[in-house]
Amino acid sequence: MKVLIVFAHPEPQSLTGHLKDVAVKELKAQGHEVKITDLYAQNWKSSVDRDDFEQVSKDDKLSVVFSSHTAYAEGKLTDDVKVEQEKLLWADTLLLHFPLWWFSMPAILKGWVERVFSCGFAYGVGEHDDEKWGVRYGDGIFAGKRAMLVITIGGWKEHYGDRAINGPIDDVLYPINHGMLFYPGFSVLPPFALYNTHRLSEEQIKIATEDLRERMRTLGSTDPIAYRKQNDGDYNIPALTLRDDIEPGAKGMSVNLDKSKK
Amino acid sequence: MKVLIVFAHPEPQSLTGHLKDVAVKELKAQGHEVKITDLYAQNWKSSVDRDDFEQVSKDDKLSVVFSSHTAYAEGKLTDDVKVEQEKLLWADTLLLHFPLWWFSMPAILKGWVERVFSCGFAYGVGEHDDEKWGVRYGDGIFAGKRAMLVITIGGWKEHYGDRAINGPIDDVLYPINHGMLFYPGFSVLPPFALYNTHRLSEEQIKIATEDLRERMRTLGSTDPIAYRKQNDGDYNIPALTLRDDIEPGAKGMSVNLDKSKK
Repeated sequence: MKVLIVFAHPEPQSLTGHLKDVAVKELKAQGHEVKITDLYAQNWKSSVDRDDFEQVSKDDKLSVVFSSHTAYAEGKLTDDVKVEQEKLLWADTLLLHFPLWWFSMPAILKGWVERVFSCGFAYGVGEHDDEKWGVRYGDGIFAGKRAMLVITIGGWKEHYGDRAINGPIDDVLYPINHGMLFYPGFSVLPPFALYNTHRLSEEQIKIATEDLRERMRTLGSTDPIAYRKQNDGDYNIPALTLRDDIEPGAKGMSVNLDKSKK
Repeated sequence: MKVLIVFAHPEPQSLTGHLKDVAVKELKAQGHEVKITDLYAQNWKSSVDRDDFEQVSKDDKLSVVFSSHTAYAEGKLTDDVKVEQEKLLWADTLLLHFPLWWFSMPAILKGWVERVFSCGFAYGVGEHDDEKWGVRYGDGIFAGKRAMLVITIGGWKEHYGDRAINGPIDDVLYPINHGMLFYPGFSVLPPFALYNTHRLSEEQIKIATEDLRERMRTLGSTDPIAYRKQNDGDYNIPALTLRDDIEPGAKGMSVNLDKSKK
């Protein structure tokens, strides 16, 4: 396998950094090829802005979507973005390693998504008609590739349960797993999440380390999250609502999971 | 009222910028005081890193949480962060104006939250015992203040419905409204969301503009989202799960809404 790891933590010696090192070592031991994007070490430019689009002149009104599309089509994206896109095309598996900060990914990683997932590359692709609504949600540039989050969380596991105050972890991560990864075509594996990270004993870290090693050994065989594909018939088009006869009456993000595949 | 507007779009002439201008004008016409944080114009530093904590020496291991706490307690946060914290303490109302990118806020705004909402200021506050679990979720530094999102969305409104593929908009925004705003104490108003932004007619923009003006006129009287307060008895402590006798059997983010208050 060819694995791209995107690592987003300012401290290499952090627990998040430790888990990244564990993943790299185990993957290499299994004979896989690994490339790493270390966003903080690379001083990654977090914010998408006018400087990303050399073709947009000073006096032009900037449209991030359309400027991104043009720059991608004309090969005029910045070099740092092109390098990341090439790594993504090279890889068959993407791992995002980050701490959950304020119930989402760190800004520097969000900025990686905003800048690298260009219009025409990762979104804004395909025709829109009565049978399909663009190429996305289960199809797209990353179709056939796998992605997985490896995250560290300060709070308790119980606080992310089905009836917990933070919201269920799968729903908290939905905008990332479904919205950023499944959308451009990745098959998304269940996340590896380590909780209560400020209070773990050495023994608990040892156990988590072994759990992550096992996840790295089963990367190619783990069943992905059973998100429904957009253009396979489950949704009304163009409303993109689930057909009335599927899980009638059910509401919420979880209707987008095909329970028959669980 | 004293209103702080945080604006996160690289193009002042964008629709997001237009809505910000509309809000400012209407609020001033109503006699309110307005301060603006224009993140792109201010060249806001998006990523929290070692440079944020002068007290952490080069050879020290950086812990973002603990370093943030120490820097806040010792008055050693960077000047740009201190200015934002002062603005937040000055304001009684916070508006976040941004485009929804990849189902979340722009990286530059996420970085504002990460850097300004310091440990000891916006989180990591209060005692943890059998009756309360820190000061948060309905209480905290921003208690008594109101917050509201004003967002622009490229997709259709239908695509964010109760059974839609993107997930219901209230759930997509839950990590922001509940996790970043209600958590440190804000009363959170229902968002102003404008959809389908790349295809709006002048007439549609005019109507949206008038809708936003009305929201600005009713900022002080609009009922906030009825999130349950953490320490008011609805949750089991320390599990922070909803009590079994409240909405028995219900699951998901929405259990954290008190339907009796809707």
